[in-house]
Amino acid sequence: MTDSIALGSTKKYSVSIIGASGYSGAELTRLLLRHPLVKLNELYAFSQSGASVAELYPALSCDKVYKPYGGETESDIYFLALPHGEALQLVPALLKAGKTVIDLSGDFRLKSVLEHEQFYKQTKLPDAVMTYGMPELFHDEIKSANAISNPGCFASSIILGVAPLFLGCDSSKKVLAINCTSTSGISGAGRSSKTELSFSEMSENIRAYKVGVHQHTPEIMQALGTSATSPSFEFTFTPMIGALVRGIYSVLNVQLDSPAEMDEIKELYREFYRNAPFVRVRDSMTEVKHVYRTNYCDIHIAHATTSGSLVIVTAIDNLLKGASGQAVQNMNIMLGIDETTGLL
Amino acid sequence: MTDSIALGSTKKYSVSIIGASGYSGAELTRLLLRHPLVKLNELYAFSQSGASVAELYPALSCDKVYKPYGGETESDIYFLALPHGEALQLVPALLKAGKTVIDLSGDFRLKSVLEHEQFYKQTKLPDAVMTYGMPELFHDEIKSANAISNPGCFASSIILGVAPLFLGCDSSKKVLAINCTSTSGISGAGRSSKTELSFSEMSENIRAYKVGVHQHTPEIMQALGTSATSPSFEFTFTPMIGALVRGIYSVLNVQLDSPAEMDEIKELYREFYRNAPFVRVRDSMTEVKHVYRTNYCDIHIAHATTSGSLVIVTAIDNLLKGASGQAVQNMNIMLGIDETTGLL
Amino acid sequence: MTDSIALGSTKKYSVSIIGASGYSGAELTRLLLRHPLVKLNELYAFSQSGASVAELYPALSCDKVYKPYGGETESDIYFLALPHGEALQLVPALLKAGKTVIDLSGDFRLKSVLEHEQFYKQTKLPDAVMTYGMPELFHDEIKSANAISNPGCFASSIILGVAPLFLGCDSSKKVLAINCTSTSGISGAGRSSKTELSFSEMSENIRAYKVGVHQHTPEIMQALGTSATSPSFEFTFTPMIGALVRGIYSVLNVQLDSPAEMDEIKELYREFYRNAPFVRVRDSMTEVKHVYRTNYCDIHIAHATTSGSLVIVTAIDNLLKGASGQAVQNMNIMLGIDETTGLL
Amino acid sequence: MTDSIALGSTKKYSVSIIGASGYSGAELTRLLLRHPLVKLNELYAFSQSGASVAELYPALSCDKVYKPYGGETESDIYFLALPHGEALQLVPALLKAGKTVIDLSGDFRLKSVLEHEQFYKQTKLPDAVMTYGMPELFHDEIKSANAISNPGCFASSIILGVAPLFLGCDSSKKVLAINCTSTSGISGAGRSSKTELSFSEMSENIRAYKVGVHQHTPEIMQALGTSATSPSFEFTFTPMIGALVRGIYSVLNVQLDSPAEMDEIKELYREFYRNAPFVRVRDSMTEVKHVYRTNYCDIHIAHATTSGSLVIVTAIDNLLKGASGQAVQNMNIMLGIDETTGLL
Repeated sequence: MTDSIALGSTKKYSVSIIGASGYSGAELTRLLLRHPLVKLNELYAFSQSGASVAELYPALSCDKVYKPYGGETESDIYFLALPHGEALQLVPALLKAGKTVIDLSGDFRLKSVLEHEQFYKQTKLPDAVMTYGMPELFHDEIKSANAISNPGCFASSIILGVAPLFLGCDSSKKVLAINCTSTSGISGAGRSSKTELSFSEMSENIRAYKVGVHQHTPEIMQALGTSATSPSFEFTFTPMIGALVRGIYSVLNVQLDSPAEMDEIKELYREFYRNAPFVRVRDSMTEVKHVYRTNYCDIHIAHATTSGSLVIVTAIDNLLKGASGQAVQNMNIMLGIDETTGLL
Repeated sequence: MTDSIALGSTKKYSVSIIGASGYSGAELTRLLLRHPLVKLNELYAFSQSGASVAELYPALSCDKVYKPYGGETESDIYFLALPHGEALQLVPALLKAGKTVIDLSGDFRLKSVLEHEQFYKQTKLPDAVMTYGMPELFHDEIKSANAISNPGCFASSIILGVAPLFLGCDSSKKVLAINCTSTSGISGAGRSSKTELSFSEMSENIRAYKVGVHQHTPEIMQALGTSATSPSFEFTFTPMIGALVRGIYSVLNVQLDSPAEMDEIKELYREFYRNAPFVRVRDSMTEVKHVYRTNYCDIHIAHATTSGSLVIVTAIDNLLKGASGQAVQNMNIMLGIDETTGLL
Repeated sequence: MTDSIALGSTKKYSVSIIGASGYSGAELTRLLLRHPLVKLNELYAFSQSGASVAELYPALSCDKVYKPYGGETESDIYFLALPHGEALQLVPALLKAGKTVIDLSGDFRLKSVLEHEQFYKQTKLPDAVMTYGMPELFHDEIKSANAISNPGCFASSIILGVAPLFLGCDSSKKVLAINCTSTSGISGAGRSSKTELSFSEMSENIRAYKVGVHQHTPEIMQALGTSATSPSFEFTFTPMIGALVRGIYSVLNVQLDSPAEMDEIKELYREFYRNAPFVRVRDSMTEVKHVYRTNYCDIHIAHATTSGSLVIVTAIDNLLKGASGQAVQNMNIMLGIDETTGLL
Repeated sequence: MTDSIALGSTKKYSVSIIGASGYSGAELTRLLLRHPLVKLNELYAFSQSGASVAELYPALSCDKVYKPYGGETESDIYFLALPHGEALQLVPALLKAGKTVIDLSGDFRLKSVLEHEQFYKQTKLPDAVMTYGMPELFHDEIKSANAISNPGCFASSIILGVAPLFLGCDSSKKVLAINCTSTSGISGAGRSSKTELSFSEMSENIRAYKVGVHQHTPEIMQALGTSATSPSFEFTFTPMIGALVRGIYSVLNVQLDSPAEMDEIKELYREFYRNAPFVRVRDSMTEVKHVYRTNYCDIHIAHATTSGSLVIVTAIDNLLKGASGQAVQNMNIMLGIDETTGLL
């Protein structure tokens, strides 16, 4: 984005959220209400239209009323937090009107329409792609973009956990295989009324699902420079939900083609993330609690062997670094202001 | 019931459950599958018809398939665990066919059709009343009955907590007022798909509801020898749900007309419950954990003052002593066998 | 405090916390790190001395190291979050050095040394009393004070729930009795290693304790203008802990001497709290979730009868409005800045 | 064991538990109290000596009092549920006295004293080995044994999940690597008073630990016919604890040397476990809830690829199939009675 501003300026950007009544939308609302350079404008929602934020989310203490979205373009910036497929319909008009757009759905993440169809069971046009908003990998592209596709929650926790092995300058090792087991908080399933997500069903429970076929697979492969259709390494992903509301905890078993030295790997990661304010490469084990209600991604190299086997553990808050926090981080970068504004 | 049998006999009673796929129905299934004198026959369900127990409740490891109920009367005993209002339609035919009936709904609890209409928003005929199945109060009536209305979960935890003050032989004190605050596990709301009962909403949460108007109020008053319409004491009931699946924890603030001595009250309770195998009057504080997955009702007299103020704390498992466990206890009494059979 | 400053001023107050490593201390740390007019100075702790905040509370992402407190007085403001009894030793020297003090313990709350001895099993001198820091009741006293005793967590949720009945201008009714049942999150017991507070013991559990003898009783009575020793109304308090980390949910059964009209009570409450930014008198039921991680106290008048019986439900976050949030609110008032600074 | 008896016989075996006051001991107590062929004799405990079962575990409703163990040998069968290292001292005398012994610790599991020293940091003699009590693998050895070393909880969930690939008759494929991520309920850490296991720390949390060095590693390798020191395949194990009390959920990423056909693998597993009453090879995804409070091990083949990559998911209750349930299953087999007695 071109009009960067100095922090401390009195100018505030007007921001609206389309799809504001879900958990990601509510978390965006919370973050934007206290962002010093933002004036939160309209909150659009569909089934909850007419309700106030205060009714649905009393902890936010916000009197705004959800409205149905009718194509308005009066704000500077639009966040979209809609079910998959819906942003595809709305974004083109917003872009045409010159708006800055950050979309939290999967609609504009994949360059391959074939992979999009395979994993989302939806068709889309080849130009339905926007800059992939993972600041630690694509900072410059984000800075100059006016439209961002915000990464998926699982994808964020996985890509950040292995990216240095693929994209780090000094990485002379080749990744042969990654087995990934990620446990998500139940809020990741959205503000839902499914029996299988009720307290009575999920307390004292853990459940895997979509093993090997989760829709975040292709964006992970794409971000790492390969593809789901013709991958450069064997990738197996087992997503799970557990008895917690927020958080994603990923255990990444990586097989390298050569021996792995713990110190060497740590150094590679530290170097790769040296300018990333929200990634912490930690010497001791991380936990969901360590990143709870923060925008941090914690990474711990837990195990490294002479046979080239690594265990990397990452933790994020799925609603922050995995969704709304990262979306605001992307907005900050696009606005040319400090990346951490409103997020610490 | 007339045909009592000797324990150890090889004769087994055939039992069916109508409304078997909800949480109370599943808990009944679990109990009856290992009851030594029962042959579990049919499991009737409506929306889940066609599914097997193993699909809905794999922990039960039972291959039976839920069927729609079409008026069959081939079993000796019928448990009904249906939404309020539905048993009213089915019970008359079962009784006409000479079946033993235990209904877990509120349909047949209240003698007063006016109170039934007020609290359940449904009409019923004056004869739609069955013996109130609280064994500690109405053991003899239950023993000779062929149809039982099983108490409500909150009602069980409250009635047992104050009954000795009303019905105990030596109780010379008069109860002026009871304020009751009861927290239930979320399974009490049934196998539900409501957003407000999702894990994301109920974790780290407590919520009161129906304050002063809960439908268990009139059965509590009736069991204590008075009525909701013209009560002999001031009664205020605040039901709540908390972040647990099972259990009801009731705090009963009782105002007596004369000073209360702790020892005297304890003695009154111990005497009242001396033949009740599932009521434990405890010297130390009780907790939900103490009765979890048991048919016990724990009672602790926590406070007694010279101004006649008492605090009594009770704990039950809402699906056992508050529903299915008590239902089986009633069946045992009706069959003339040891009350605890299949429940320890 | 005398030196009030204009918001926006560049001057920052230096603040230290004594007893910073517990849950209240950590929450204070979090709040003060982002308070615009505070420079967080030293964090004093005892058993955790030498550890860094980042080790104990990685989510805070703060590199400060806990130090043992040796009588330093270099900061402008001192918060004390120590076990009961310890602040009694440290506060006199801080006051002598002209420091602003906010103590979160019970040491300086009670004017009656007799009641202090009875409930805390400790002696103290008659002058060991500081202004009771409940802003909604004692705003002016707090504004001119240089030392504050911050209310207890249960006490906050209870006093705010009934204060208008005692202190409201138009309150012509007399309170005869209050029965209070309050469920607290387990963080209220501190950063503990007791078996009885382990996850395995407290999941799916609720436990009452100290029924009728909890140490918050006398400060509640004192704040309402009466005393525990010679109370103007019957007060019975049942504290409980439940399966949640944060939050206090209080159900207050109030018996008035005359009929209670719902609208009249609501109006009394709204009028009483019209200038209180953190108290919300709500028309619909409140829940712990509504105030989770906020400094709000929600109040809902749930029931009112012609016999003068009221049910009032309140919800707070025990670590915020019940401890550290209220402490910062008190600091803001003492500093003469907007009460809500750093708390929204 | 030689003296097998017919089910239905009136003879009961007298059984004592040494180390009865922990969670495994309590679960053993619960199971043995209702086992039809057992007379529960003494409950030995150390720190809890003098307390009654009813005090520590009111849900068990058992009046027995824990005693210190002083070398008594009056029972037929001894279960030991002690901290690692303690059974090494007690078992020899019990065996010398001709007793049947089932030890739940790791003391007698490993044949290799070197691996024992490496993983348990304790020395032991080469003959300190007893039959490994995994009925699905070593049924005949268990049947003729008089002393059993009961498998570890994680080990049970992992070995059962991959054993058919190693020990199945038709398994022509070679396992090249297994990456295992297992989440345990917190009860697995015992009846603990560690701060890191408190409700406040573990609610909404997940934490990995001992990555690659967990002490269950060598028994897993040994049971699969290889060794930790010189393994026939690459094995990486990441144990975790999550926000649940009971259960172990293991995700096993297996790399085979040749393509894997889903149906072929399922058939291999079904055939291998055709006589195993407590292993269920399921067509649909399993969850902790499915095996909660049961002795089942559920196995689901979730993914199989032409590149020979498998994802196998297993679920057990850590206190039952992972400890006390399996111990009773072993006892049943040793006694020559139906394996499932007292466990359904």
